[in-house]
Amino acid sequence: MAAFEAWYETRRGVILDELSAFVRIPSVSTDPKHASDVARAADFVAGELKEAGIDDAKVRPTEGHPAVTASWKKAPGKPTVLVYGHFDVQPPDPLAAWTSDPFEPTERDGRLYARGASDDKGPMLIPIKVAEAFLRLEGALPVNVVFLFEGEEEISSAHLEAFVAANRGELAADFVLSADGAQWRTDLPSVITGCRGGCALEISVRGAAKDLHSGRHGGAVANPIQALARILARLHDDNGRVAVPGFYDRVAALAPADLDAVAKIPFDEDAYLRSVGATKSVGEAGYTFLQRNWLRPTLEFSGVSGGYAGPGKKTVIPAFANAKITCRLVPDQRPREIAEQIAAYVRSLAPPGVKLDVGIEPGGAAPYAVAADHPALALAEEVLLEVTGVRPVRVRMGASLPVAEIFKRELGLDTIFFSFATSDEDYHAPNEFFRLSSLQLGLKAWTAYLRRLANLNLAR
Amino acid sequence: MAAFEAWYETRRGVILDELSAFVRIPSVSTDPKHASDVARAADFVAGELKEAGIDDAKVRPTEGHPAVTASWKKAPGKPTVLVYGHFDVQPPDPLAAWTSDPFEPTERDGRLYARGASDDKGPMLIPIKVAEAFLRLEGALPVNVVFLFEGEEEISSAHLEAFVAANRGELAADFVLSADGAQWRTDLPSVITGCRGGCALEISVRGAAKDLHSGRHGGAVANPIQALARILARLHDDNGRVAVPGFYDRVAALAPADLDAVAKIPFDEDAYLRSVGATKSVGEAGYTFLQRNWLRPTLEFSGVSGGYAGPGKKTVIPAFANAKITCRLVPDQRPREIAEQIAAYVRSLAPPGVKLDVGIEPGGAAPYAVAADHPALALAEEVLLEVTGVRPVRVRMGASLPVAEIFKRELGLDTIFFSFATSDEDYHAPNEFFRLSSLQLGLKAWTAYLRRLANLNLAR
Repeated sequence: MAAFEAWYETRRGVILDELSAFVRIPSVSTDPKHASDVARAADFVAGELKEAGIDDAKVRPTEGHPAVTASWKKAPGKPTVLVYGHFDVQPPDPLAAWTSDPFEPTERDGRLYARGASDDKGPMLIPIKVAEAFLRLEGALPVNVVFLFEGEEEISSAHLEAFVAANRGELAADFVLSADGAQWRTDLPSVITGCRGGCALEISVRGAAKDLHSGRHGGAVANPIQALARILARLHDDNGRVAVPGFYDRVAALAPADLDAVAKIPFDEDAYLRSVGATKSVGEAGYTFLQRNWLRPTLEFSGVSGGYAGPGKKTVIPAFANAKITCRLVPDQRPREIAEQIAAYVRSLAPPGVKLDVGIEPGGAAPYAVAADHPALALAEEVLLEVTGVRPVRVRMGASLPVAEIFKRELGLDTIFFSFATSDEDYHAPNEFFRLSSLQLGLKAWTAYLRRLANLNLAR
Repeated sequence: MAAFEAWYETRRGVILDELSAFVRIPSVSTDPKHASDVARAADFVAGELKEAGIDDAKVRPTEGHPAVTASWKKAPGKPTVLVYGHFDVQPPDPLAAWTSDPFEPTERDGRLYARGASDDKGPMLIPIKVAEAFLRLEGALPVNVVFLFEGEEEISSAHLEAFVAANRGELAADFVLSADGAQWRTDLPSVITGCRGGCALEISVRGAAKDLHSGRHGGAVANPIQALARILARLHDDNGRVAVPGFYDRVAALAPADLDAVAKIPFDEDAYLRSVGATKSVGEAGYTFLQRNWLRPTLEFSGVSGGYAGPGKKTVIPAFANAKITCRLVPDQRPREIAEQIAAYVRSLAPPGVKLDVGIEPGGAAPYAVAADHPALALAEEVLLEVTGVRPVRVRMGASLPVAEIFKRELGLDTIFFSFATSDEDYHAPNEFFRLSSLQLGLKAWTAYLRRLANLNLAR
């Protein structure tokens, strides 16, 4: 390990320069104007892999932005790990809120500020640099590695599933080690053992054919906002529990040990509430904050609109009102089934005099959980303990990580998240940054992980 | 009467030319760009009055757009009537929906199409032309007349109250005869015996300080849309009755005779529903359509907004949600008191974890009803029977006519609505028109009204 640490130390400036060149590419996948930049980022990644000594690195076309693959399989009898990351980034808007140019990396206080520095260019560069170190110092990697980096993570991995399905043989591995999927917080190392799934719906309520004067027509026709409010109000009971029949039917019972583990995680609820500017934690009665946020499903209203929204008043009975719903789901809920249960219940609540439409958004994500006894998960914990000196906690993600579910479904593989971003690094927001100390920590941790993986018995 | 009919017949082309010149002036009071046009319209009205022989016609400044006054008081011992109308107009938007230019009057099928033709330039020109006919044919009016035309009716008569209060002596009269306040429908003449008042509120619900990711935060913090929906859903009971404590306390009991009169009015509910594109009449249980629309108060939601309203989904817990409420009030409800009752009730429903603000819009309108035995009302009915051959029905307005309440409060005068616009003439909408037959009918009716008024005993 000492040789690797010395290597990373001498290469520190070079690696930082390469990361800087990487984040200068504005690979914003959601914006067609930046399609050529996403392609440039793919070329950059393939170039980095080749320079590391992974000769078969290739930019791979998809129906959308390209992916990059590479493999090193010269460790017969050793495990094969599929390394995942992404080189596309969120849009930098609002630009005015950035202290320095989002695509001109700037070092301040040990942090590299740039769009994509934390999500996911910094973290995904780490395994490439670790592979390079093994090949330079020892002429070989300790295990077989397949690299898959995509350019569409920020647009819901739109074409990843088709790409994975079309290249199953090439991507075959024992498990996925993801360079994406940030650490929960800065003060406590963590491993993610699962994430919630999701589904989304839209409710449209129509009354008259056009907005009507509230004086001339008030009392005569149905008001779509009133109808909608009365429907939305009945989707939760007074205890904050989702009132949709069947919603909880498949929710797997939580083992007392799991609940106990979550209960032991130190969590400062007041500090959290201050950080988001809320006065009180609110949700399903009978569960703690982290239980509600990680282990329990939710039904949230993400948007509502109808009638006049400008300043002052307009004396109108609107023709139309609309609400958007997003759910977070836990094992073993099924996105489509839940969406259909909600749609059926909403339809059953429709009052007379309005026309109700419920649309189910395509592409719900299934919830994901890794088996608690997965050896690759335990290895991640051991390595984190080794490099940080602190035993990591097992956490769930309240959000969804669709790639994990895609890898599970298409390749039958579990995903272990081993990212060295942390969730406070303002990814998806102005002034995104990556801690340079995390870069060093990540290099050390990935080196240790691959080394130890060579001797891991993955049979369970 | 024959001499007057002959006079109006020979003057038909001239009157139409003058109305055309009047509607060519785009006197849109709500748009500061058109302030000089509103002033031009005032000059036009004063010019018409002078040409009619009312020498003291004057443009009168207010804090906003000007008003026009004039008077003829050479009939000692006879009643004095305050004639009201307005020369400002609604904006013509959406322009693309007009068949012909809104400010270039076009005659088609016996209708004059132009913004303001029906509301209120055509109807308000009638009493001026009738005064002119009396002065030309007989050298005198049969009664004393004070004219008051305003330029701010379409912006809630913003400065009328102050103007009236400052000129009480000059405006003193026995009652107001309004050239504004359209006939209910084309197939049945009607007189308006009252209108509903109104008040407006806005409810704002704030949760966290910013929109939060619905995955990372779902289940942790209050959702303002959920809180708002649960509040709105409790403002009516399951029978469509307003659930705000005290809301109905001052609602005057309706005399069986009044209810009976309304019940006898022929009304085709299906035709109405077809005309507004609604499938079913919905409202407070236990009342008929016209009772609900005219005689019962309402609480309507005129707008709701919060979170993401664009296409598709956004996985967000919004920081903020908002709803707008407008009420229609009946005698003897008081706008401010009702608004405060609603605000107090809404506040009492606020769930934990959100910050609630309830704002009361300034300027609520009190409901208005003319005494059923007012002789000037009976006279309007007799004249309508005379000129149309059909006995008019007594109707209420679901909407508000704030001027009536202003004249009652500031001058102690009842207002009789004697307009020859009809409510199907698309005022406030594209392709506004005025029936040229209504112009002739109105000239005849106002002539008869002023003639008969001379012998009316206004004492009750």
